[in-house]
Amino acid sequence: MSTGTRIQRITITPIAFRDPPLLNSAGVHEPWALRSIIEVVTEDGVLGLGESYGDTGHLARMESVLPGLIGLDVYALNQIHAKVAEALGGVAGSDKHGLTGDFTSGGTVDRVFSPFEVACLDIQGHLLGRPVHDLLGGKVRDSVPYSAYLFYKWAGHPGAEADEWGEAIDPAGMVEQTRKMVREYGFGSIKLKGGVFPPEQEIAAIQALREAFPNHPLRIDPNCAWSVPTSLRVAKELDGVLEYLEDPTPGINGMSEVAKQASMPLATNMCVVSYDQLPEAIAKDAVQVILSDHHYWGGLTRSRHLGVICDTFGVGLSMHSNSHLGISLAAMTHLAAATPNLSYACDTHYPWNAQDEVIEPGVVSFVDGAMAVPTTPGLGVTLDRDQLARLHENYRTCGLKVRDDTGYMQKFQPDYERKRPRW
Amino acid sequence: MSTGTRIQRITITPIAFRDPPLLNSAGVHEPWALRSIIEVVTEDGVLGLGESYGDTGHLARMESVLPGLIGLDVYALNQIHAKVAEALGGVAGSDKHGLTGDFTSGGTVDRVFSPFEVACLDIQGHLLGRPVHDLLGGKVRDSVPYSAYLFYKWAGHPGAEADEWGEAIDPAGMVEQTRKMVREYGFGSIKLKGGVFPPEQEIAAIQALREAFPNHPLRIDPNCAWSVPTSLRVAKELDGVLEYLEDPTPGINGMSEVAKQASMPLATNMCVVSYDQLPEAIAKDAVQVILSDHHYWGGLTRSRHLGVICDTFGVGLSMHSNSHLGISLAAMTHLAAATPNLSYACDTHYPWNAQDEVIEPGVVSFVDGAMAVPTTPGLGVTLDRDQLARLHENYRTCGLKVRDDTGYMQKFQPDYERKRPRW
Ligand SMILES: [Mg+2]
Ligand SMILES: [Mg+2]
Repeated sequence: MSTGTRIQRITITPIAFRDPPLLNSAGVHEPWALRSIIEVVTEDGVLGLGESYGDTGHLARMESVLPGLIGLDVYALNQIHAKVAEALGGVAGSDKHGLTGDFTSGGTVDRVFSPFEVACLDIQGHLLGRPVHDLLGGKVRDSVPYSAYLFYKWAGHPGAEADEWGEAIDPAGMVEQTRKMVREYGFGSIKLKGGVFPPEQEIAAIQALREAFPNHPLRIDPNCAWSVPTSLRVAKELDGVLEYLEDPTPGINGMSEVAKQASMPLATNMCVVSYDQLPEAIAKDAVQVILSDHHYWGGLTRSRHLGVICDTFGVGLSMHSNSHLGISLAAMTHLAAATPNLSYACDTHYPWNAQDEVIEPGVVSFVDGAMAVPTTPGLGVTLDRDQLARLHENYRTCGLKVRDDTGYMQKFQPDYERKRPRW
Repeated sequence: MSTGTRIQRITITPIAFRDPPLLNSAGVHEPWALRSIIEVVTEDGVLGLGESYGDTGHLARMESVLPGLIGLDVYALNQIHAKVAEALGGVAGSDKHGLTGDFTSGGTVDRVFSPFEVACLDIQGHLLGRPVHDLLGGKVRDSVPYSAYLFYKWAGHPGAEADEWGEAIDPAGMVEQTRKMVREYGFGSIKLKGGVFPPEQEIAAIQALREAFPNHPLRIDPNCAWSVPTSLRVAKELDGVLEYLEDPTPGINGMSEVAKQASMPLATNMCVVSYDQLPEAIAKDAVQVILSDHHYWGGLTRSRHLGVICDTFGVGLSMHSNSHLGISLAAMTHLAAATPNLSYACDTHYPWNAQDEVIEPGVVSFVDGAMAVPTTPGLGVTLDRDQLARLHENYRTCGLKVRDDTGYMQKFQPDYERKRPRW
């Protein structure tokens, strides 16, 4: 057993990449999305990659655990998790950009642990000469379907030119955005990020999408913008139209109330975002679909545990995404490939951010809305170091250190208020 | 990626090894315990080992899935599980020797899948040059504590000489048995298999053990021999004495009633033995400790999932054993080593059956009641082929094809009735 598999060095590089003015219930995406690229290198010089959040607090928490990880073996994942927990000292911490749930201390450990676990699995795959999904029980599908992720948006950032996607602030604009996205990526499922306009307008958008795309499963996610009565009204109007309704209202109790009367399953990436929230959510049957996300469920192995929990308790499983690049997408695809009960197309922001990719081309591509599962060793992706340097330079110069959709919106609408529920 | 990692051949060898006349709530152990040794060989000739039950029905079910497994990759564990489920066609089947729970069809799939999964992990470990626990997230302890597993017993099988353990049918005999077992193995925890004599006698035995071993955690497992009121009476008498009370009474509802009033945690390997029984058991808080057992929870990876489920829902985790040999013990030890929340000493029948071991000596040994976690590749055990041939010959000639503790007891006590609860 080589000692060369111990971690010798970890580098965390914050990056920023361009992001369109995508609207949501907390405001609007700033011109730069923050992220971090994690490189773990063994004593034998084998490199593993991870990708994570880029907010200052998260970066500091990741940095704070590094001393405890040096010298640990890349197979010692249980030990690495324990070291992360120990270094964080049970302190909860959250960068509340408001579109995923608030994190408990257990959730914070899992969120900090995640990119190191992914990088260690990448290394394990390279050492073994097998793709990461083989470390997760093996793939059960050769390609992973993703859904079109629609956003209400401005034509471009204020003061800048329109982007290639143009404006989408009404049903016609949304249908046009979908046509472009389906044409370019072939997606077979559609998710609308709602919570931006009054519910009637968003219902009209869904109905326009249903008409234009009669065979595409549809979802809407207002990020808790609605009260329980409003949620129930929307659920009734969209009866028979939605595959699932995502986070209509805040909290496990609110979701549970809506679930009792809504005809479609409720999905969440807001009221159940860590293990310690599962018992109450399951006892109250608050959600029928959990959107897993290895970035905060503690990496790929722990996300497999979550999958089995969902299977055991009769909860559906889908996959959540934040703005991300190709390392995350590869990891998501390996995980989804090795998760038998992942029965929905996964979310991805990828089309919005693909132009600033940080990996070498060739691995990430969508055919008929699905990404082929990588078959080469590890995650199957290679860092483009020139591009990493450029994206890090963006980070240095862009002026952003945390995600703040609300603050950015207030620059243009000073009376804009973050409010949940809003309707 | 070598195709040489595909399964070329699987051999299932039924074996029988000597077993003392151990008493339990269903009768008495026959002179032979049945088991099976599973050998999986890849196209490249790498051998992996598994150990499982030896009852006719289980052997037939294992044989029936073999054609579907040939040609599958040893990393394709999800696919192997699906093939087993497909071959079994959703048919439930159980060899009801009455000391583990009745199996659902999901449980039957997991029970048939288990030895193949263990053998595949053994192969993966050999290919990688790392111990199996490294495939499960890495060990969090260097040795795994086991508990002394006491049985009421006759001096020897009727018509045969007394065995080295002699008779134990009262508190004094039980203390003597414990002294020998603790002296020879160093166990630091004690479990008494009860359900044999009226509860008062077994309470007296526990009290005698408490006096003789004041610092050893104590458990009693009457295998559902008691009604709810009897269970509550025993729980009250043994308040403050037991670490946990195992399966006092049948069924999730009965256990739940007892749990409401008993002062100590209730443990089970009878009312929760497969994933589909977890939701009800958790909803009713029927058990506070689940005794995992990779032989019926679907192998080592799926037992890790169970561990996370227990951790998530605040259920304790211990480990169950049937009569077994060293391949099982090695697998149990790797699993326990890689399960952070396994907070109790594991059960093992090993001292009762060690004389007929099927692996080469050196790996299995107990120091201070604990087994050192193997550090060599795979499970770390080597089959003793001469011994395998002898044990298979035992199987051929011993005349037993299923385990039948009740029938054997009735040979000597014709009016013996299997009855649950009995008191
Ligand atoms: Mg969402
Ligand atoms: Mg038991």
